[in-house]
Amino acid sequence: MVDAPEFDEEFRRRLRDLFAWRRDVRRFRRDPVPEGTLDRLLSLACGAPSVGLSQPWRFVTVDEPGRRAAVRDLFTDCNRAALAVYAGERARLYATLKLAGLGEAPLQFAAFAERDTAQGHGLGRQTMPEAAEYSVVTAIHTLWLAARADGLGLGWVSILDPARVVDILDVPRSWLFIGYFCLGYPQSEDTVPELERADWERRRPAADFILRR
Amino acid sequence: MVDAPEFDEEFRRRLRDLFAWRRDVRRFRRDPVPEGTLDRLLSLACGAPSVGLSQPWRFVTVDEPGRRAAVRDLFTDCNRAALAVYAGERARLYATLKLAGLGEAPLQFAAFAERDTAQGHGLGRQTMPEAAEYSVVTAIHTLWLAARADGLGLGWVSILDPARVVDILDVPRSWLFIGYFCLGYPQSEDTVPELERADWERRRPAADFILRR
Repeated sequence: MVDAPEFDEEFRRRLRDLFAWRRDVRRFRRDPVPEGTLDRLLSLACGAPSVGLSQPWRFVTVDEPGRRAAVRDLFTDCNRAALAVYAGERARLYATLKLAGLGEAPLQFAAFAERDTAQGHGLGRQTMPEAAEYSVVTAIHTLWLAARADGLGLGWVSILDPARVVDILDVPRSWLFIGYFCLGYPQSEDTVPELERADWERRRPAADFILRR
Repeated sequence: MVDAPEFDEEFRRRLRDLFAWRRDVRRFRRDPVPEGTLDRLLSLACGAPSVGLSQPWRFVTVDEPGRRAAVRDLFTDCNRAALAVYAGERARLYATLKLAGLGEAPLQFAAFAERDTAQGHGLGRQTMPEAAEYSVVTAIHTLWLAARADGLGLGWVSILDPARVVDILDVPRSWLFIGYFCLGYPQSEDTVPELERADWERRRPAADFILRR
């Protein structure tokens, strides 16, 4: 047994910095990342909280050039379809956005949720089976923060058809696709989201999102 | 413009400590938490990453004794139904578990996702509308870590019927219930999940969850 650590104000200040400088990165440098980085980060991710201790996350590291190209092509198709929904100035702006770093990011992986895992014996999942997916997201977010503390950026790609990702990566059909991720050194760093810098959207204050009961 | 911070090995070590000591807490002390704590933590949460910068999180702080009691009763009902699914030794063990701190936690709130928010103009949500829920989970996990750095514990309650929570808290029916949360000082601290200490389940190594493609 070791004593629980005391986190001091200096640590909390740096943690707030980490939250503030953690961005969704779409512009990566092509420099390689040190050997073992992704496994180390995935290991941290697997220590995330999970419903009923079910650890429902399933990670797939993607290195094979053919599979990476297939994901890139799928993104291109889905993004073209997404663009078609917009009109006028909004469509013009959408077309200028860089929404994924699939061509450059040195490390890539996908995350899935296994709702039906026996691990955890179903605890906490009867009224809300979707808690499995939420557990996977806490694992991804853990990795995201740890990566940023290493100077690495993560980009979450959701403009993909989940069923086609399952096919491309040849994983069990019971796995629910959560997201595809690009990881590498970012070209630049900022506290302002790229979508805000591009005038797509702006952040609203917390008070807009809180009700009192 | 300020320069991006450099996070050093000492910070990364403390961040790993934070991940390791962040637990899902069900046993709270009744001490009050300093005024303003929850608003400060929710403010940090609202800086989390979100799909298309949509900030789809909706938080409801719950202070009214009647609503708290209704959530507690709902949990009791849902937990009784959950227990009925188990048999034998597993049922006996389930019945011994303390799965929520609803009676003691000084601060309580719920989180919802608004899939149909206009904010973000739908970016990133066409093929995966569930990305809205995942954004809410990154906000919750941000709050969870910040709370732990303050010495506070968070407990995520998922053994609730989502439709009935929407009614009890009187929120728009378009809001998707993500979870109900208890916040306060934990009775004890540990790096081992309570469900592992209670012999309900044990954590598996990361290698069990990683495929290579």
